[in-house]
Amino acid sequence: MLILTPKDEVDESSETHELELGIVGHGPAGLTAALYASRAAISVACIGKDYGGAMGLALEIENYPGFENISGIDLTDKMRAQAEKFGTKIVYGEISAIEKAEGNKFLIKSDMGNYLVKALILATGGRHKELDVPGEKDFIGRGVSYCATCDAPFFKEKTVVVAGSGDAAATGTLALSDVGAKKIYWISRSDYLKCERIYIDREEQRDNIEILFNKQISEIKGTNTVEEILFSDGTSLKADGIFAEIGSLPNNELAIALGVELEEDLIKTDDDCKTNIPGIFAAGDVTSKIKNPLSRQITTSVGLATIAAISAAEYLQARKTMKED
Amino acid sequence: MLILTPKDEVDESSETHELELGIVGHGPAGLTAALYASRAAISVACIGKDYGGAMGLALEIENYPGFENISGIDLTDKMRAQAEKFGTKIVYGEISAIEKAEGNKFLIKSDMGNYLVKALILATGGRHKELDVPGEKDFIGRGVSYCATCDAPFFKEKTVVVAGSGDAAATGTLALSDVGAKKIYWISRSDYLKCERIYIDREEQRDNIEILFNKQISEIKGTNTVEEILFSDGTSLKADGIFAEIGSLPNNELAIALGVELEEDLIKTDDDCKTNIPGIFAAGDVTSKIKNPLSRQITTSVGLATIAAISAAEYLQARKTMKED
Repeated sequence: MLILTPKDEVDESSETHELELGIVGHGPAGLTAALYASRAAISVACIGKDYGGAMGLALEIENYPGFENISGIDLTDKMRAQAEKFGTKIVYGEISAIEKAEGNKFLIKSDMGNYLVKALILATGGRHKELDVPGEKDFIGRGVSYCATCDAPFFKEKTVVVAGSGDAAATGTLALSDVGAKKIYWISRSDYLKCERIYIDREEQRDNIEILFNKQISEIKGTNTVEEILFSDGTSLKADGIFAEIGSLPNNELAIALGVELEEDLIKTDDDCKTNIPGIFAAGDVTSKIKNPLSRQITTSVGLATIAAISAAEYLQARKTMKED
Repeated sequence: MLILTPKDEVDESSETHELELGIVGHGPAGLTAALYASRAAISVACIGKDYGGAMGLALEIENYPGFENISGIDLTDKMRAQAEKFGTKIVYGEISAIEKAEGNKFLIKSDMGNYLVKALILATGGRHKELDVPGEKDFIGRGVSYCATCDAPFFKEKTVVVAGSGDAAATGTLALSDVGAKKIYWISRSDYLKCERIYIDREEQRDNIEILFNKQISEIKGTNTVEEILFSDGTSLKADGIFAEIGSLPNNELAIALGVELEEDLIKTDDDCKTNIPGIFAAGDVTSKIKNPLSRQITTSVGLATIAAISAAEYLQARKTMKED
């Protein structure tokens, strides 16, 4: 569900555009950093290919304060327009490389033009691991979910399957139980669970949770929404939804190529969202600032992005004073 | 500008209400924590007396992603309704004390009833130091501002006075210069500036900044908006606005009384928004998590509140398992 918007004005020339700040990523972190930076009169290009990042995939968002219920695309539209209002140049393009350039600058190469910038904010987010079975993509937001914290309340009085064996699956199962799901099947591919023992103690006290081992999903079936989960052993379960809580992968490839220091695959930043490289900042789900994976939310992304933008503004101001620019 | 809403249903009985979580504060941190916790099926009372906290005082907000322009009251209304939708009990009351109670609980005593809770989130925010001169309160949001990061862009091509001598005043002055204020008078009460030297170097490169020493404001005058700033030496300046960047004070009194550990007057928390006392969490401007005072924004408050609510939910879940409750 990568949405490219051909209607957007883009630049396909080979010209190099010079700007003060380059932001990579179009999710809530990237767009918020763009809003704060451009509102502080910094020239900004916000470059990415996935409209709204992970947020763009959400059909219903109920937990971003201020909006009772909004789709990820609609919220992205609003955040994008707000950043553009203050002068952010939004660029839909695939970045092939970011290179260090002369004069302590960075050159962002994309299929929609090259951008030479004095500072970078990496807000490349992460991607949920997928089950990779037939039916999965068809029912995203229609019963298939990757975030129990976000979507559990939509499954009150429903029957759901939770796939995964780690802490995220465990807490997702409990969250579903708490909000009043009728029945939760927690399935593990193997004959054990990898989550902390304390979660299993909690599960055992719930009447509506059943744990099944050695179950590998082979297909997700339904009409408009999910109706049935098929397993490779030939069995199946009737269910209104499935939560794939099998982990996530940070989009850290550009950071690695730049030599940015990582911490367990995530970009390591200090409290001011600075990385180990002067002029490079990071925000959102790609950073190690959010210790608890459950806390990778739109709210925490916009918070970190604010800090990253304010730090980048101070860095750019200091460069001016030093007559570097 | 403390807004009490007499239309709200309140309980003036001496009865003690038992709930799982008590949240103190009605700003963006308190209301976001309430949203996340009540959406996770936790019973929540959110208690405070200032509608919207510091956010409630803002006439125009342009930097909360999703809303191009909204008043602090309107945004508070939305956040409040959203938390209430999931069951949060909103209580307008003045808290006289919070005491530790039997069974690892906390008793919140207010003039709108007492609340016995198993966990607490302190989101009591901070208050900007005021100039304490005639006219100041009359023109809040009409030329008088306490946050340059928030309000500087409204003063493009305007003449403004910045009061204060520290880093906040220095960066506020630069922010106003960056967004294109016509003329900025930076005034210090004494004959020196307390800010970092680097900021003064930057100021000196700007044509539109003038620094004045030994100026003490005696009155703010205007009709609908600020027009003139009077000084105690009998001089005055025509100006469209005044930024009072003279510091802020965290609302830490309840935390101190509970024995919560502080760090430079702010509540000390770990990355999961836990304080030193089990069952007490903190979020927003009252915490030490935001190192840069410029980053005390609605965005960072909703981010920390999310983390605090998720941590509180895990704490409450663990209590259930331990059969403590």
